[in-house]
Amino acid sequence: MQTDKISSVQDKIPLVSPPAYRLADHTTPFVRNEWYVAARSEEVDRTLRDRLLLGVNVLLYRTADGMPVALQNRCPHRSFPLSRGKLEGDNVVCGYHGLTFGPNGACVRIPSQERVPSAVRTRRFPVVERAPLIWIWMGDADAADPKRIPEHPWLSSPDYACIGGMLHVKCNYVRLHENVLDLTHFPFLHGDAVGDLAYAQAPFEVAEEDGSVCITRRLQDHPVHAVFAGAIGNPGHRVNRTSESWFKTPAFHIAHETIEDLEGGVGGRTEFHFKIVHMFTPETATSTHYFWVSARDMAIDNAALSEAGRGFALATFQQDEEALERIEEIWQREDDFREISLTGDRAGVFVRRIIARRAQQEARLPSAAQTDELSS
Amino acid sequence: MQTDKISSVQDKIPLVSPPAYRLADHTTPFVRNEWYVAARSEEVDRTLRDRLLLGVNVLLYRTADGMPVALQNRCPHRSFPLSRGKLEGDNVVCGYHGLTFGPNGACVRIPSQERVPSAVRTRRFPVVERAPLIWIWMGDADAADPKRIPEHPWLSSPDYACIGGMLHVKCNYVRLHENVLDLTHFPFLHGDAVGDLAYAQAPFEVAEEDGSVCITRRLQDHPVHAVFAGAIGNPGHRVNRTSESWFKTPAFHIAHETIEDLEGGVGGRTEFHFKIVHMFTPETATSTHYFWVSARDMAIDNAALSEAGRGFALATFQQDEEALERIEEIWQREDDFREISLTGDRAGVFVRRIIARRAQQEARLPSAAQTDELSS
Amino acid sequence: MQTDKISSVQDKIPLVSPPAYRLADHTTPFVRNEWYVAARSEEVDRTLRDRLLLGVNVLLYRTADGMPVALQNRCPHRSFPLSRGKLEGDNVVCGYHGLTFGPNGACVRIPSQERVPSAVRTRRFPVVERAPLIWIWMGDADAADPKRIPEHPWLSSPDYACIGGMLHVKCNYVRLHENVLDLTHFPFLHGDAVGDLAYAQAPFEVAEEDGSVCITRRLQDHPVHAVFAGAIGNPGHRVNRTSESWFKTPAFHIAHETIEDLEGGVGGRTEFHFKIVHMFTPETATSTHYFWVSARDMAIDNAALSEAGRGFALATFQQDEEALERIEEIWQREDDFREISLTGDRAGVFVRRIIARRAQQEARLPSAAQTDELSS
Repeated sequence: MQTDKISSVQDKIPLVSPPAYRLADHTTPFVRNEWYVAARSEEVDRTLRDRLLLGVNVLLYRTADGMPVALQNRCPHRSFPLSRGKLEGDNVVCGYHGLTFGPNGACVRIPSQERVPSAVRTRRFPVVERAPLIWIWMGDADAADPKRIPEHPWLSSPDYACIGGMLHVKCNYVRLHENVLDLTHFPFLHGDAVGDLAYAQAPFEVAEEDGSVCITRRLQDHPVHAVFAGAIGNPGHRVNRTSESWFKTPAFHIAHETIEDLEGGVGGRTEFHFKIVHMFTPETATSTHYFWVSARDMAIDNAALSEAGRGFALATFQQDEEALERIEEIWQREDDFREISLTGDRAGVFVRRIIARRAQQEARLPSAAQTDELSS
Repeated sequence: MQTDKISSVQDKIPLVSPPAYRLADHTTPFVRNEWYVAARSEEVDRTLRDRLLLGVNVLLYRTADGMPVALQNRCPHRSFPLSRGKLEGDNVVCGYHGLTFGPNGACVRIPSQERVPSAVRTRRFPVVERAPLIWIWMGDADAADPKRIPEHPWLSSPDYACIGGMLHVKCNYVRLHENVLDLTHFPFLHGDAVGDLAYAQAPFEVAEEDGSVCITRRLQDHPVHAVFAGAIGNPGHRVNRTSESWFKTPAFHIAHETIEDLEGGVGGRTEFHFKIVHMFTPETATSTHYFWVSARDMAIDNAALSEAGRGFALATFQQDEEALERIEEIWQREDDFREISLTGDRAGVFVRRIIARRAQQEARLPSAAQTDELSS
Repeated sequence: MQTDKISSVQDKIPLVSPPAYRLADHTTPFVRNEWYVAARSEEVDRTLRDRLLLGVNVLLYRTADGMPVALQNRCPHRSFPLSRGKLEGDNVVCGYHGLTFGPNGACVRIPSQERVPSAVRTRRFPVVERAPLIWIWMGDADAADPKRIPEHPWLSSPDYACIGGMLHVKCNYVRLHENVLDLTHFPFLHGDAVGDLAYAQAPFEVAEEDGSVCITRRLQDHPVHAVFAGAIGNPGHRVNRTSESWFKTPAFHIAHETIEDLEGGVGGRTEFHFKIVHMFTPETATSTHYFWVSARDMAIDNAALSEAGRGFALATFQQDEEALERIEEIWQREDDFREISLTGDRAGVFVRRIIARRAQQEARLPSAAQTDELSS
């Protein structure tokens, strides 16, 4: 119920003037015209599941043919959650009065009357499956172009080993974006596990283009960090490390780590790649579904290495989660304050401006109206 | 505390224009000028009990003579709950400063001073006992006419066997009214236990008169439903079934089921009656005290049958409760939506309009003012 | 999280017209230009602790020299709670990005950049230690004059034995002030343990001066109350009892009890003194840190007597706490009502007017503005 309260705060935000939304935060409306990850492929099957996405309760299932379906999880008649009904072929039967809906959201049967008015439909959300993920579009359906889903070919390439998972974090998704763009917190929050002080102080460039932001940090001729040496098998070697962190969309961030071995490499190779994709789907204004996949192009058949990598990733994310949840609590308690941004926040600030601008553009659009008339 | 929050939402609803309240829902102010069930007779005795009714904490007890008393459960001095004090004869002594109130709400003693200002009183609510129930009027006391309590002679008639009980449901009372007027959900929510698909599809009439609404549904020459056959003792017989569901007041609904046996009946009788009274008393905007009594005019001395009937009724009500609580959660989370009404909702829609109209009429009345001056 | 919600209610109170705030209650903004007890001296050491004071999360620690420090517990950069960082000498290192702050709140190091902009600082609150207590000023720092801390020489005098403690009470601090000024509730809430009916009915005077209020109650030639007789050693003697209860500031109340033995006294003495200091520090609008110290000038080396006194005080305070929390619950649920004040409330009403007036004066003052600009 806490969730509900927070969600409704989100709903009640008035249209505001540009300065207040200059930097997005947990009071900023969600950006709806965007593809978000709704679920991992393996989560969606022939059972009815629901998930709160962008403050909307969504029903997820697959047709007999295996196509994923996403409908608003509320019967348009008397608001019963459709996920508490049952699947009948590819249709969903409401558990209250038996109204039956097809995968396109249209009602196909009302047991208590013959005529089925066309107005009786639940909202269908466009979905696209790009294994291992299912993407959803919760904005204007006409604008739902799957080409806008960011590329991530490494996640299905035979040259890469992938591991992944999902977290539920009780903080706003904007904070999570800012956190993954900010490489200066590594030695403090993570205790050198992913980057030491030299790394935090290394020079960087920030580029903004077409609503995406990239921060590139280069550490030249430096001992290879333990987190990479373990996978590459080159502990003690000096390397050039290039970290590119890309905010691609409000739903998708990808970090490319390139390690160039300056001491001969391993097995004839001198360049090694690590990728990590962070996908953030707002649940409420103060909670986020956090999907992640990590990929590497060396020792790809080493299952023990993958398992260790998963443990390491989770430990690191839990430190982020713990920090961001404490911050979110402070924001909840003291909601009338400003923060000071530093040089290292340049990428994060760009992103918060982008999200604020997009949210504001959408807030000007009228929303669809519905009716409560008798439809007999 | 959740309850409190919701209750205060109720209090803060502004006067609104007619369209918004066309159909009553959980944002509609309570109808106060009405008799509601405060308690079952057996619940009220010589101890001090409190219950939240229509958002107001009420103290309930009996005088030495057995008369039920209902007072606002708040000392007018420093707001201590009177239910935490003690009974002294027919009077209530506050546990904080010893102020003492008679059954009419007037203060009769202030230990720390001699004069008792007449302004020192807690609100008294008119109550009427019609066993097995105690009714309360929480509106304008001058309009509290006991004749307005709907008749229910079967509940005390020697020709009927009665069973009854009480539930606490976490949904708005308007939803409960709509649910008992809506007979088309039977085969879906209750799995044919109280009516099959033929019943849901049977023709019906709706009549509105003087602020009450009746839906009558007739199923002609149909095999007797198991729920009735067990009591009547005529399994397999063909019968005419007539179901009259009456919304009498915002507090009271009665369903009359008449079974006419077309195959000779049982013991010389061919017509059998079942009654069920649903009495809804709002607790908060999103919770309701649900009192019910069920009566039958056959096998009235069969205690095992009564016990089975109680179990069956509770199982059915719990299905309703489960459904309505899930709907209420959705309303709490997504408060800006409309619903589509179907042909079978005609009676429910009439009732929601009646409640909305009555609430709005009352909202125009000024409320009593009090003072915080020193009364010495 | 309940706490947060209530706290934010406090923050959103609009400027209101004088009548609404005639008597302070839980909707009245806090009086910030005042010294409040932040902690008992023994609570603050070389670890980082936080406490919510007047709705603000405050970091408390001591420098290596033992000086107490109070800072706003929020990094000005990205709002991480500083109490989750670490002490480095007298400085606090943030656990997120390593920003380091001195005991005056100024940032002295930003690991990821060389320049430290002067705007990067967390708020420092003036503190003063007067053992056994540490006082904090959360208003306009320029007005923080330690001379305004009320005198309490008995608490450190060799002629007095002191006991003390701390409670956390879930009610507004104004109610606690009113309760300690109100001596008429003794026989009802405390069952004669601190004063019988004759005491509640004894004549009293109320004096208001310079924003402080004193109520004096005299009980002449009366059997000594058991609570005093036990310490003095004069059970059964007739005495004059004079009770002076002083509201000194919104943070500080002191009660002086003077017992004059009319039957020869004990050990040559006929006059005995008891003091009890009640110090209330608002946590949120509906919760309070309640510090207390009690002192007596007889049998000062009797440890068993002190221990018994502590138990007695706690039992009494818990009765107050229980009553006030129930009242606070009623205020939360039914927020649109007035109370009637009696003759015995004169002192409490004066205090509620003083607090309301001071809160209103402060609400007219502009608050400090901050910036969210990049400070690189």
